[in-house]
Amino acid sequence: MTFPNHQIIFNAKTFSNDKKTFFEKLDKSKKGEIDAKIIPLLNLLNQKKEHYTTSSCSGRVYLWKGTGKKNETEWLKVSHDFINKDFFSISSLAAAEKGLVWLRLEPLIAHVACKDLDSANKLLAVVRKLYKKSCLLSLSSKIIVEIRGSEFLEMPLYQDGKLLFSAEIDLVQLVNKKLTLIFNGLQKLTASLENF
Amino acid sequence: MTFPNHQIIFNAKTFSNDKKTFFEKLDKSKKGEIDAKIIPLLNLLNQKKEHYTTSSCSGRVYLWKGTGKKNETEWLKVSHDFINKDFFSISSLAAAEKGLVWLRLEPLIAHVACKDLDSANKLLAVVRKLYKKSCLLSLSSKIIVEIRGSEFLEMPLYQDGKLLFSAEIDLVQLVNKKLTLIFNGLQKLTASLENF
Repeated sequence: MTFPNHQIIFNAKTFSNDKKTFFEKLDKSKKGEIDAKIIPLLNLLNQKKEHYTTSSCSGRVYLWKGTGKKNETEWLKVSHDFINKDFFSISSLAAAEKGLVWLRLEPLIAHVACKDLDSANKLLAVVRKLYKKSCLLSLSSKIIVEIRGSEFLEMPLYQDGKLLFSAEIDLVQLVNKKLTLIFNGLQKLTASLENF
Repeated sequence: MTFPNHQIIFNAKTFSNDKKTFFEKLDKSKKGEIDAKIIPLLNLLNQKKEHYTTSSCSGRVYLWKGTGKKNETEWLKVSHDFINKDFFSISSLAAAEKGLVWLRLEPLIAHVACKDLDSANKLLAVVRKLYKKSCLLSLSSKIIVEIRGSEFLEMPLYQDGKLLFSAEIDLVQLVNKKLTLIFNGLQKLTASLENF
């Protein structure tokens, strides 16, 4: 691929040092666990000389309250896997939560540092076939490709402890159907990156 | 701003020709109307030698049914402005719609073609202060910055013609509150780009 109006100078050493430093830091911090479902994708990308992953989520569903801003949002419950009806059980939440409790489902997101614009564009071209909302987040200090799915839910679920939905809809099934799409997408993406 | 590992060569003439061609095509097609609320932002960006806007939406709310894929989705109703309770009136929809009818609210989105990586990064740095999800969509044939808000709703609303929500929640108020955030954000963004 060529870039109109641009000429690219590689600096392979800086990138591989950044990659090494990033993984050393990760080893030291050991905070959090990586979701097992996304590990094959991360391994594939991290084997490439031109890429490494900096953060990822294979998809998740959670209940939250607050304003939605980062420091004004409390997560009440979260699942990175299929749910059952206990997920919505009011007894397992503080039943007297005042105001709105929201249900949110988010797609797969993975951030991938790329050695240069060529390797970023090459990755984007592959992932865009399955994840049209993927894009470049940053070009200034690092070149980061964001792989992003498009499955979402964002809906008010409880108000002052009362369920807002009628029993006619099976929310468990609805959430699990979206999660199935997300996890199937992740498998397809991993397969499509095997020979890239 | 400088780019690590890259050197950029400008080609101002190609970009200004692209810009001219784009607006000539737009004049000829005359399809659709541009939402009045977003015109000050578009004018600001299109006055710049280094930018022009290729598509935009100031935010919208709509009812839809189908699979969610582009060719398998039917829009039943749409508003780019505040709504009243008629928006949810079942009589104004086909009351016998089988299956699910969804409510979706989407944030401001604007696509801006940029002359080069420097002008793209300069724009991204300004818009990211207000719209953290903004990114670069494309680098290969054109350099496109996507300005993207973060307000969303995606929820099932009717099943086989029956409203799924209890009367306890004021959906009109909830939607209009989100739209207020979107339109206030647009005004702030326009102001922040005035001296950039």
